[in-house]
Amino acid sequence: MTGGPDIREIEDAAGRLAPILRKTTLFESERLNAQIGGRLLVKAETLQPTGSFKIRGAWNRISRLSADSLSRGVLALSSGNHGLAVAWAARRAGARRIVVLMPVDAPRTKIEQTRAFGAEIVAYDRRKADRNALVAQWRDGQGLVYIPAFDDPQVIAGAATVAYEIAEEAAASHIAIDLFAAACSGGGLIAGSALALRALSPATEIWGVEPEAYDDTAQSLAAGERVAVSASGKTICDALLSLTPGELTFTINRKSLSGIVGASDDDARAGMKAAFEEFGLVAEPSGALALGAILAGRMDVKGRTAAVVLSGRNVDLDLYRREMADSALDPSPERLTG
Amino acid sequence: MTGGPDIREIEDAAGRLAPILRKTTLFESERLNAQIGGRLLVKAETLQPTGSFKIRGAWNRISRLSADSLSRGVLALSSGNHGLAVAWAARRAGARRIVVLMPVDAPRTKIEQTRAFGAEIVAYDRRKADRNALVAQWRDGQGLVYIPAFDDPQVIAGAATVAYEIAEEAAASHIAIDLFAAACSGGGLIAGSALALRALSPATEIWGVEPEAYDDTAQSLAAGERVAVSASGKTICDALLSLTPGELTFTINRKSLSGIVGASDDDARAGMKAAFEEFGLVAEPSGALALGAILAGRMDVKGRTAAVVLSGRNVDLDLYRREMADSALDPSPERLTG
Repeated sequence: MTGGPDIREIEDAAGRLAPILRKTTLFESERLNAQIGGRLLVKAETLQPTGSFKIRGAWNRISRLSADSLSRGVLALSSGNHGLAVAWAARRAGARRIVVLMPVDAPRTKIEQTRAFGAEIVAYDRRKADRNALVAQWRDGQGLVYIPAFDDPQVIAGAATVAYEIAEEAAASHIAIDLFAAACSGGGLIAGSALALRALSPATEIWGVEPEAYDDTAQSLAAGERVAVSASGKTICDALLSLTPGELTFTINRKSLSGIVGASDDDARAGMKAAFEEFGLVAEPSGALALGAILAGRMDVKGRTAAVVLSGRNVDLDLYRREMADSALDPSPERLTG
Repeated sequence: MTGGPDIREIEDAAGRLAPILRKTTLFESERLNAQIGGRLLVKAETLQPTGSFKIRGAWNRISRLSADSLSRGVLALSSGNHGLAVAWAARRAGARRIVVLMPVDAPRTKIEQTRAFGAEIVAYDRRKADRNALVAQWRDGQGLVYIPAFDDPQVIAGAATVAYEIAEEAAASHIAIDLFAAACSGGGLIAGSALALRALSPATEIWGVEPEAYDDTAQSLAAGERVAVSASGKTICDALLSLTPGELTFTINRKSLSGIVGASDDDARAGMKAAFEEFGLVAEPSGALALGAILAGRMDVKGRTAAVVLSGRNVDLDLYRREMADSALDPSPERLTG
């Protein structure tokens, strides 16, 4: 395999994506800056169509499909956000059929929205299913075009446009980004980000954030090769449950990451709470993990400028309400007495 | 009194506000369009600095204060969002002192944020206090410059830039807006909107939405003169508790509104839920009331294009969680069985 998309392919993806994306200019909060003792810039990919950054990779890949491919139909295996993005993109491109393999315990909202875009949803047990065999069965048995969630140069190039935009906005505002952080599962977002920033902002540190219970990238980096974690780990970060890094993404990430941290469910909750209170943004646990990790001090941002991706918002309202109750509340609620 | 700011003053306000505002391009959701049988475009003023549209009127007014006025200090009386916006603007402009008269039961988040901007908060009992006397006491007794929440041409001109932007974006996209709706309390947002749309999109209907329990504008329109409602009414829309319309705003609104509707707390909750699910946006009850009213069918939008303002997001997390539990949940939650 080669080293992934180059900057020209990322710029090409940016041009292709411009008509369908929402401009997500960086958010900043005085209170969070004071809390971390640095400057925090938040890229709200929660505001994109389909509610996550996944639409970028999906559209970059699917908008290039031939008429023949579209007539065969597309296939995706996804914890939810990629499948939803593929369904949106495939419907827009005119695919004849859309099949999404999704865990039986995926959030209701991801299932419903994906179905609403015309996808056939096939449920699998993420603890027991042989995912590769499932994909092969549907791809080869049904003649569908498989759209990988991360192990594909065009999908990575699409995801890379997130950091590409951050770098452009920072440059235009004369801001130097010392550190970039984003969630890491299969590794597509962080790999694409690393490729974009290597070209546009080479001094920026690149940090991946994984759930502590699914630290396959950290373990793989330590082992020097891809390893798999157990599917029995518990976390509310339902979009970050890859058991092993992608092949292409790991090739990129092992050469590019400045660091990788594991973060807790409480970090995810703290990130969700901060997004709610500081910006009025809804984030799903996985989408808020990197933000929460920074707030928890898992990366050194003191006196520095950090950019973080708020990567998705597809969370069921009842779970959101429940998880926001468990988060640490303000110890002394403000009350007026006068 | 004259008829309020003209389009030239509104354009001037837009130019003055451009450096401090976030671009709030309209949001659209297929699911909501299908639900109403029309086209719904949402202006998310929740994303503005200070979390509501109020920053527009506050900055338009305060950025024009003389050095002498700034050295005297500013005063605001506010249920929360206007006070917060004034504190932000006054601090940015360099006011020597900021005093905000706020109800003792205002949302914690509004109190805390306002204080964080350097304001002195003076609590009043909104059921018993003589608000005019309170303002006079602080304005005259302390020599402060009073910044009205709505009854001021520059504040109205600032608020008018919301609809001004909507009209510009619609024109650029070749969209005709049949109906515009926004929450109505003192009447500043809807009055400013009416002035902007009269100039830029005169065929657009203009609808104000009030809490049923605080329908002072509806009663005043029916009576042909300003009347006051009781302060004992119950609603969760804590930002829409004006007891009577403003003087200048009523002068404008009585000539400009196509209609006024009262909406329920359940409508507010439905609007909050829709903002959460469709856009990943947090809205406070008052900020979501107009959206909820449209979804409840209180305005005729079938086959038409409606623009609605999501006007604010300053709600305490615990109240948000609680109110989102009371809203109607999906009757048959989606589950996969395969």
